[in-house]
Amino acid sequence: MHENVGHARLGMLSWFKNYQRASLAGDVSAGLIVTLLLIPQGIAYAILAGLPPVTGLYASILPPIAYALFGSSMVQSVGAQAITSLMIGSTLAALAPAGSGLSLVLAAQMALIAGATLLLFGVLRLGFLASFLSRPVMSGFTTGSALVIAGEQITPLLGGSLSKLHLAGMTIGLASLLALWLAKHHLATLLIRIGVSKNQADMLSKLAPVAIVAAATITVAALGLNRLGVAVVGVIPSGLPVIAFSVSAEHWRPLLRPSLLLAFVIFLFSQSAAQSLAQKRGERIYANHELLGLGAANLASALSGSFPVTGSISRSAVNYTAGANTPLASIISALFLGLILVAPTGWLSLLPVPVLSATIIIAVLSMVDLAALKESWRYDRSDAAAMLAAIGGVLVLGVEEGVILGVVLSLATIIWRSSRPHMAILGRIPGSEHFRNVDRYSAETLPDVVLLRIDADLFFGNADVVVEHLETLLQQREQMRAPVRHVVLVMSAVNVIDTTALHALVELNRNLQKRAITLHFAEIKGPVMDRLKRSNFIAGLTENQLFLSTAQAYDYLIDYSSKSRPAFKAL
Amino acid sequence: MHENVGHARLGMLSWFKNYQRASLAGDVSAGLIVTLLLIPQGIAYAILAGLPPVTGLYASILPPIAYALFGSSMVQSVGAQAITSLMIGSTLAALAPAGSGLSLVLAAQMALIAGATLLLFGVLRLGFLASFLSRPVMSGFTTGSALVIAGEQITPLLGGSLSKLHLAGMTIGLASLLALWLAKHHLATLLIRIGVSKNQADMLSKLAPVAIVAAATITVAALGLNRLGVAVVGVIPSGLPVIAFSVSAEHWRPLLRPSLLLAFVIFLFSQSAAQSLAQKRGERIYANHELLGLGAANLASALSGSFPVTGSISRSAVNYTAGANTPLASIISALFLGLILVAPTGWLSLLPVPVLSATIIIAVLSMVDLAALKESWRYDRSDAAAMLAAIGGVLVLGVEEGVILGVVLSLATIIWRSSRPHMAILGRIPGSEHFRNVDRYSAETLPDVVLLRIDADLFFGNADVVVEHLETLLQQREQMRAPVRHVVLVMSAVNVIDTTALHALVELNRNLQKRAITLHFAEIKGPVMDRLKRSNFIAGLTENQLFLSTAQAYDYLIDYSSKSRPAFKAL
Repeated sequence: MHENVGHARLGMLSWFKNYQRASLAGDVSAGLIVTLLLIPQGIAYAILAGLPPVTGLYASILPPIAYALFGSSMVQSVGAQAITSLMIGSTLAALAPAGSGLSLVLAAQMALIAGATLLLFGVLRLGFLASFLSRPVMSGFTTGSALVIAGEQITPLLGGSLSKLHLAGMTIGLASLLALWLAKHHLATLLIRIGVSKNQADMLSKLAPVAIVAAATITVAALGLNRLGVAVVGVIPSGLPVIAFSVSAEHWRPLLRPSLLLAFVIFLFSQSAAQSLAQKRGERIYANHELLGLGAANLASALSGSFPVTGSISRSAVNYTAGANTPLASIISALFLGLILVAPTGWLSLLPVPVLSATIIIAVLSMVDLAALKESWRYDRSDAAAMLAAIGGVLVLGVEEGVILGVVLSLATIIWRSSRPHMAILGRIPGSEHFRNVDRYSAETLPDVVLLRIDADLFFGNADVVVEHLETLLQQREQMRAPVRHVVLVMSAVNVIDTTALHALVELNRNLQKRAITLHFAEIKGPVMDRLKRSNFIAGLTENQLFLSTAQAYDYLIDYSSKSRPAFKAL
Repeated sequence: MHENVGHARLGMLSWFKNYQRASLAGDVSAGLIVTLLLIPQGIAYAILAGLPPVTGLYASILPPIAYALFGSSMVQSVGAQAITSLMIGSTLAALAPAGSGLSLVLAAQMALIAGATLLLFGVLRLGFLASFLSRPVMSGFTTGSALVIAGEQITPLLGGSLSKLHLAGMTIGLASLLALWLAKHHLATLLIRIGVSKNQADMLSKLAPVAIVAAATITVAALGLNRLGVAVVGVIPSGLPVIAFSVSAEHWRPLLRPSLLLAFVIFLFSQSAAQSLAQKRGERIYANHELLGLGAANLASALSGSFPVTGSISRSAVNYTAGANTPLASIISALFLGLILVAPTGWLSLLPVPVLSATIIIAVLSMVDLAALKESWRYDRSDAAAMLAAIGGVLVLGVEEGVILGVVLSLATIIWRSSRPHMAILGRIPGSEHFRNVDRYSAETLPDVVLLRIDADLFFGNADVVVEHLETLLQQREQMRAPVRHVVLVMSAVNVIDTTALHALVELNRNLQKRAITLHFAEIKGPVMDRLKRSNFIAGLTENQLFLSTAQAYDYLIDYSSKSRPAFKAL
């Protein structure tokens, strides 16, 4: 059973082949709503990455279509996302002037590297890496990044630099920040109170930012505030993205590490969004498909003049709530966005930057998850410490170093865990053939025998630990003047013994023999035994060293014990 | 029980406090024999590292004494070792001329970095990292490095460069190679045949290299071959190492990575030597003590003008076989070596280099472990592939990259393993209260109920996998038109639920609820339950979602099932 996990295959485009008409209404309305959201969001996140505003719109045209071909989520919304934009921006800032032609080339090159990596990982079926960062580390990284982004947006929110505020810009920025905050926290309640259904109220409050941005744009246009110095987005070229690609040969090296880290973060965000929504819909996500979908989306992004894209948790949730049933919703949204771009785009040029900053701040502050910190502090201090380390890493060292720190923390945890297999000393439940942990049950034991159950696969990560544990036991018993003469390893929970563990057992057997202690094995599973027979290990053991059941081993050792020693603990 | 592993503490110098007179004879004779071995070995490995010959002798004076204070092995022989010398040499070659004053400073600096790292890791109790490289990866790395070293020694063995052979040098080199090979493979048998005891024969054949080196040196001295162009070791300054230390500030950065990798390799070799000998002696090795001992030894090395040292597997085995009982043997050996250095050292200067190359070649060829490759090929193909990759990594990419490749391979394996928890669907053994894996036992199940036992701690590395596995099951049952209404997670093997897994369970419960599936838990262990009660999870469950035993859950669901549905699989 377990072997199937992650290996099942969905036919490509199976959602398309089995498309049901009933899904269409939901897909169209979700597509429309996401498009409306995408306009300010795409532009804002492009600016955050230090790129021309239109590239943020391109990010949601071809990439989601490419994702629809390979990905496994039905409701994933692929495109620009705040934290990946921060990472892109911090990489590009060191290499090219913001908004320059070179920065465009390098952004596409990052998408190329990240996309190729994601595809390769998908082909190599490395999707299991998704469960690699713990939730506290991930949420620490997100929280830290959100705080960095919010901090960076304060200046544009206030319409200039802190020393040189622009009154009109500042007014627009703070007013829209207030409006966005009210819409986010109180609009839905208000709408429900005046009789709107809960679902509609939710939807309307999620679209409120669009209305606020529109209102601000109209205000700027009507009062000509852009001519008074309020920063606006500026010209957004009309027309669809052009398929073209150029790279800067000298930049492969400096882009490599940031792009690989970015690929990792893209995968983690996207997988986490896909998974939580799939579970709500009772569907499955295949991590390897997700990798292929994201790889294809990023290659499409590289080819269409955009930057690295990912599945956005918040936008995918809107897509889901708005009724999306299949990736058709994203395709429809891409088509709408394309239509908007082929129509005149002059009206977009007056989007005021302070309002975009306000939408970014409101969006990222919802990612700050101090409740998680409090909760994990109460539940598991080490998790809370990991989260604090990740937040601190991002704030103090930078966003890239924050990811690396998180990876190192997680690796250390995994290695540490895998080096601590659970083991239990067994005894017989009196009058039965059942054997249980003597620490939990009152069970009888034989004086010179240890029954040790190993509750993990035996491999290089824990083989030595098991041997050392046993040696400690033997020494303790020696010191208690109750030396052990027989060790029975109960292998009922061991599904794998790798070469390293095999050698450890061979050496253990040889060394115990020298010390006149006999090593026995009980309940070795069929497949494990089949493989062991291919080594010389089993052939080197005597008949009395291998038992099918723990009970058989125990019975044999009672006899043995009673023959060789006068007394043992009463049965 | 298990929690104690690696946490037990040995008092420092407990071997000294409890020293028994009976141990003295063995310690003295082992100390003497190891000293004899150390003279050619230390000099040869210093030359291999591109350093003045005497530094290889210094490596076995203060460092083993420092190790004796902190280490936990009774028979470890700390000093120069072939593979670490190769690593040191390849690092220094890029930074300083061989044998130069700078190379001496940098070698000590490497020992300082490696020593400080090892000490730090010991203090942080990171000894569990020892079980980090699998045996095949380690033996692949060793085999590859041995081949590199043997290849590099061919030229000095032949007394010059391949194009410009030196006849006398070549003769000495090849003759001693033959003599060493014969001594290694046939001397012991021969001696036993003429009536020497097995133990003595072993010892004599291990000392044969010393006799061969001595004979070659006498030949060179007698015939004045050094004046005819046979390369000799040259002046070995008389006197003890001076405690002094200087660093090159500009070289911290280029030395950092190689020194950290070296520290890792030092620990792995040393730990593996210590462990296999301790097991033979029925003793325990504490990885954290080993780290402290090696850290102290390397700091001592840095302070006394030497280079990074490690526990040598082959030399420690000689020490053990020669009768060493405690670290006193190494201290005695250090004293002997000191005596040799304060006496006139002129005789050492005529040691011919081709003979040293021959001893190196014979020593490292015994590290080439093609039998392990063959064996793991038969037993576990993936292990054989890992070994081949490690050999190839060293031969093709270089020794440092070989270590990195091994680490990456091992990490990927550990992560992959930890993302594959074992799970079993349980059924009731008819007429009993026992529940077993339905794949292995004929056990009865209820039609709309799944009992899933999770055989691993739940943490971020596998929480998603468990949830996905369950979703696959639910979907399969849905497709078989046998939908599941109740899921019972049997938690008898779960000792830890971390924050990530807790959230996965909360979300699973919420989502199953929406789909009219009830999630139940059975056999949650006491400590796990205590911690869960600190979260809101347990409070949010109803009484019928928590069962002490699987049998109770089953009985409840039989009743429930029979009330709500007309039929279920016959009891």
